Amino acid sequence: MTTKVPIVENILSANEQLAVSNRARLDAAGVFAINVMASPGAGKTSLITRTIEALRETHRIGAVDGDIATTLDADRIAAFGAPTVQINTGGACHLDAVMLQGALPQLPLEELDLLIVENVGNLVCPASFKLGVHRSVLIASVPEGDDKPYKYPVMYRGVDGLVLNKMDVLDAFDFDVDYFRQGVEALNPGLAFFPLSCKTGEGLEGWLNWLRNEVQDHVPGNPGKDR
Amino acid sequence: MTTKVPIVENILSANEQLAVSNRARLDAAGVFAINVMASPGAGKTSLITRTIEALRETHRIGAVDGDIATTLDADRIAAFGAPTVQINTGGACHLDAVMLQGALPQLPLEELDLLIVENVGNLVCPASFKLGVHRSVLIASVPEGDDKPYKYPVMYRGVDGLVLNKMDVLDAFDFDVDYFRQGVEALNPGLAFFPLSCKTGEGLEGWLNWLRNEVQDHVPGNPGKDR
Repeated sequence: MTTKVPIVENILSANEQLAVSNRARLDAAGVFAINVMASPGAGKTSLITRTIEALRETHRIGAVDGDIATTLDADRIAAFGAPTVQINTGGACHLDAVMLQGALPQLPLEELDLLIVENVGNLVCPASFKLGVHRSVLIASVPEGDDKPYKYPVMYRGVDGLVLNKMDVLDAFDFDVDYFRQGVEALNPGLAFFPLSCKTGEGLEGWLNWLRNEVQDHVPGNPGKDR
Repeated sequence: MTTKVPIVENILSANEQLAVSNRARLDAAGVFAINVMASPGAGKTSLITRTIEALRETHRIGAVDGDIATTLDADRIAAFGAPTVQINTGGACHLDAVMLQGALPQLPLEELDLLIVENVGNLVCPASFKLGVHRSVLIASVPEGDDKPYKYPVMYRGVDGLVLNKMDVLDAFDFDVDYFRQGVEALNPGLAFFPLSCKTGEGLEGWLNWLRNEVQDHVPGNPGKDR
């Protein structure tokens, strides 16, 4: 006697199911959301505060800040007037869709245009957990070295925009921008690339224009990117 | 009728059991081993090559290099003449005792005094996986920022030595060494601290002296630190 084992295709993981639900909730409220990832100290919070500062006259912006411990970053962001929710992961090395699900009800979603999610500082784990946002952005930084695309390919493959921060100290480091970009292009051809300095403000306009366009072009409910 | 449930204490996880076994193997061969951890780009490979260069006349040194992809770092280390084994974790965000167990037979352990294990670039996950080595060392770097002890406390708590690399660019960054050290002291009082620059070589002697002493003072089989 044989038993036929049913094969069910396209089963979503629990995390992916919740990501879909988060996306639906954001779309229903008309909020465009991005996930910002990077190594520790690459400049996530600096880019976010610069972005809020530049766009707050034209966009209603909220933030979710993921950290293992402390509210240092969330405090910095909230100081720029954006409604901010802190997620302390309590040791976990990434945000996931469950954590974002818990954060969304604490934000005035109906009153926001843009939600910026700051992930935990980590160039590995966050790449594997969808949150249900519309775009993912990676911040690299000059002092980290030009070999990072080669050594952390999963992260570089799964993003829609790449910021290279701390360009103001390029001369102090042995960083070959061409070698860096070759590594990026091999993994993610045509990836939007923004070399800039959050410290001096140089190059920020390219990043801001890209983000403005992404928010403007977004059609809620359009499946688009799956991040 | 009641059943008495036996309580078994001190059960080691599978990883910890293998760490004990790795330690026994290292001790049997008379090898002192350290685990070097850091964020991506903080300077793990640079510190290791500087260390091999400085100690190779007096110590027989081998290396294990953990990376998600590529052999870029292992190639750099092997170029300094140390027997080197590359572990490509294939996406995993840390080394564990199983991976080290697989690497040890590929090294001439009986001919080594010191084994340097370079973990995956990650300030979170490697802190949770013992390898069976004798000491753990963390490399922070100036461009990462002075708030990292506060934000990544688990990593800072579990190490025996702390290097602060890239001191040559201190003036280019807004890094308060006192604030950094206060955070460290609160988590790990009296932690050996070595501000240095792998680029210029300044400050390396303090680190090298500490490492020389740790190797010299080590009594194989002494339980000591459990890393």
